[in-house]
Amino acid sequence: MADVERYIAAQVRAQTAYHVPPGEPLVKLDAMENPYSLPLELRDRWLAALRDVPLNRYPSTDHYARLKARLAQDAGLPPGCEVVLGNGSDEILQNILLALASEVTVVAPTPTFVMYEHIATLLRRPFVGVPLNANFTLDIKALQDALARHAPAVLFLACPNNPTGILYSRAEVRALLEVEGALVVIDEAYQPFAQTTFMDEVARSSRVWVLRTFSKHGLAGLRFGWLAADAMWTHELEKVRLPYNVGSLALATVDFALDYADVFAAQAARIRALRAQLLAALADVVTVWPSEANFVLFRPHAPKEAARIFQELKMQGIWIKNLSSHPGALAGCLRVTVGTAWENQTFLAALSRAL
Amino acid sequence: MADVERYIAAQVRAQTAYHVPPGEPLVKLDAMENPYSLPLELRDRWLAALRDVPLNRYPSTDHYARLKARLAQDAGLPPGCEVVLGNGSDEILQNILLALASEVTVVAPTPTFVMYEHIATLLRRPFVGVPLNANFTLDIKALQDALARHAPAVLFLACPNNPTGILYSRAEVRALLEVEGALVVIDEAYQPFAQTTFMDEVARSSRVWVLRTFSKHGLAGLRFGWLAADAMWTHELEKVRLPYNVGSLALATVDFALDYADVFAAQAARIRALRAQLLAALADVVTVWPSEANFVLFRPHAPKEAARIFQELKMQGIWIKNLSSHPGALAGCLRVTVGTAWENQTFLAALSRAL
Repeated sequence: MADVERYIAAQVRAQTAYHVPPGEPLVKLDAMENPYSLPLELRDRWLAALRDVPLNRYPSTDHYARLKARLAQDAGLPPGCEVVLGNGSDEILQNILLALASEVTVVAPTPTFVMYEHIATLLRRPFVGVPLNANFTLDIKALQDALARHAPAVLFLACPNNPTGILYSRAEVRALLEVEGALVVIDEAYQPFAQTTFMDEVARSSRVWVLRTFSKHGLAGLRFGWLAADAMWTHELEKVRLPYNVGSLALATVDFALDYADVFAAQAARIRALRAQLLAALADVVTVWPSEANFVLFRPHAPKEAARIFQELKMQGIWIKNLSSHPGALAGCLRVTVGTAWENQTFLAALSRAL
Repeated sequence: MADVERYIAAQVRAQTAYHVPPGEPLVKLDAMENPYSLPLELRDRWLAALRDVPLNRYPSTDHYARLKARLAQDAGLPPGCEVVLGNGSDEILQNILLALASEVTVVAPTPTFVMYEHIATLLRRPFVGVPLNANFTLDIKALQDALARHAPAVLFLACPNNPTGILYSRAEVRALLEVEGALVVIDEAYQPFAQTTFMDEVARSSRVWVLRTFSKHGLAGLRFGWLAADAMWTHELEKVRLPYNVGSLALATVDFALDYADVFAAQAARIRALRAQLLAALADVVTVWPSEANFVLFRPHAPKEAARIFQELKMQGIWIKNLSSHPGALAGCLRVTVGTAWENQTFLAALSRAL
């Protein structure tokens, strides 16, 4: 092991790998996946689109350019703003941090998506978490102070936030942009469930970047994310992007998904309707928070029971996310993804028994 | 642009993005792609394997584990050695450098695969190129000196090497391992065309890592690479791997390719036979170097004509790689990928006209 200490960075040795549980549950409501697969009537068309993909060739530069232009147009980006493609938005987060100068501090309201801090730690970039208010809203004053104190600083803002489900307001985002020199990366992973977007802010300010993914509305297996920003930034991010980071099967499948955007939009609408039912049912038995995402954060009235409840559900093949051991406002909390009507019912029945 | 200077690392600003030319040539012999696509009779079976991939779910941990075990078994790795999966071997190269402590120097004989230095520069890791001998063989003494002087150091050794095509010997690799503490990453991207492997060295020494890719023998569009090493290293590399870096369509396609490994092996054998014909024909009109890869390095007898020849071929829709402006032994050189019999004939005829 002496070799490991000699060669591997201390920050890497001190980390644990991001844990993805093995196994196949009966009801999988732990990972914010869309419960609906590609409709059967579309599957043959999708496979036909894959049939002639030249797998023996590297992904084509022209295809990257066409897809970037299409995403930019669909998003209504003005000239001078461009798109960067990623192998999932995780890779784009990593590339952002790789591109940043080492003195740039990464700031995020916490709790939030754990990969912001995980990647910052691995890449040895300073990370400052600014606690949310007890009701999971933004502490604007504390964030403004952090951005000013650590300048230059980049703020990662998940809108809606994970694991809380709360969507921050436009006024709040703009108040943070008022801090001199602050760069704000808005992560819209859950945008399809919020029916609102900050994409138009990219045109208003060159200091706003917006990150999107295809993972939450039906294509988590694909690994595809994209970022919209002023071209002066995308020009630099393109340098740290590995040249063929998005494979040809992903390119063809993303094209297909954009051709059938209405199908995915209808699935998102169905999930929003199911979320309303799930929220109402949960509110009868536990504390819940409003959600603009495809999951619900909740806390049993006896918070110390959360870990036991999580385990009892797991024993029945129902996976949700256990956040109960987190410090602060998340203590005693659990998170459940919105599934199909049957999955939600199965979860709710098991939860009632466990409570 | 003041913001760019403030936020983006100087080393990133100073770089240019890796250039992949746009457009679709008539004969594409610039990127070491396998000219053969998936045989038509296999394509329906491949699509059938993709049909039921759960695209709405994240790639499964169990699938990663099964594939890693299968690759380890096929490679004859002993217990205690494991496999890491990558979105192409480029990503694994990046993850290796991310995991290394900042004082570890990256050493490589040069010229070699340009991504070693490109990624090291972007990740702000020290890179030392040790020139090959004039005939592109290793300067063992100079490499041993560099490894000892820059300890701790990791050596990237492409076997066969790109862009020269030359395969280094086992005795040379072992001589480099004799340097106290040297770590040797053997990049076997072109292994299918060399019919030899250093994979067994992984079992002999925990300081040998072997990198493979599916790109050169038929699946460049897929983006899939893997690394074999002692588990004490893979344990650390797993921490810097993004949790879902290989997508579900790639997993299913790699499984399929392993099921039909004989088809890809037959394509590689055909390419080796075509390489022998191409080498013989080129030797009549230019200087060539022996190649154990799926490409041939050559130099016109009038080296100053190389750039003109490259352009004339390009005007006819025949793309090869222009290395003529490189300093040192590569000056005046061009590199051509082994294509189909027709592609090679078309290239040779155009070359004869241009000479």
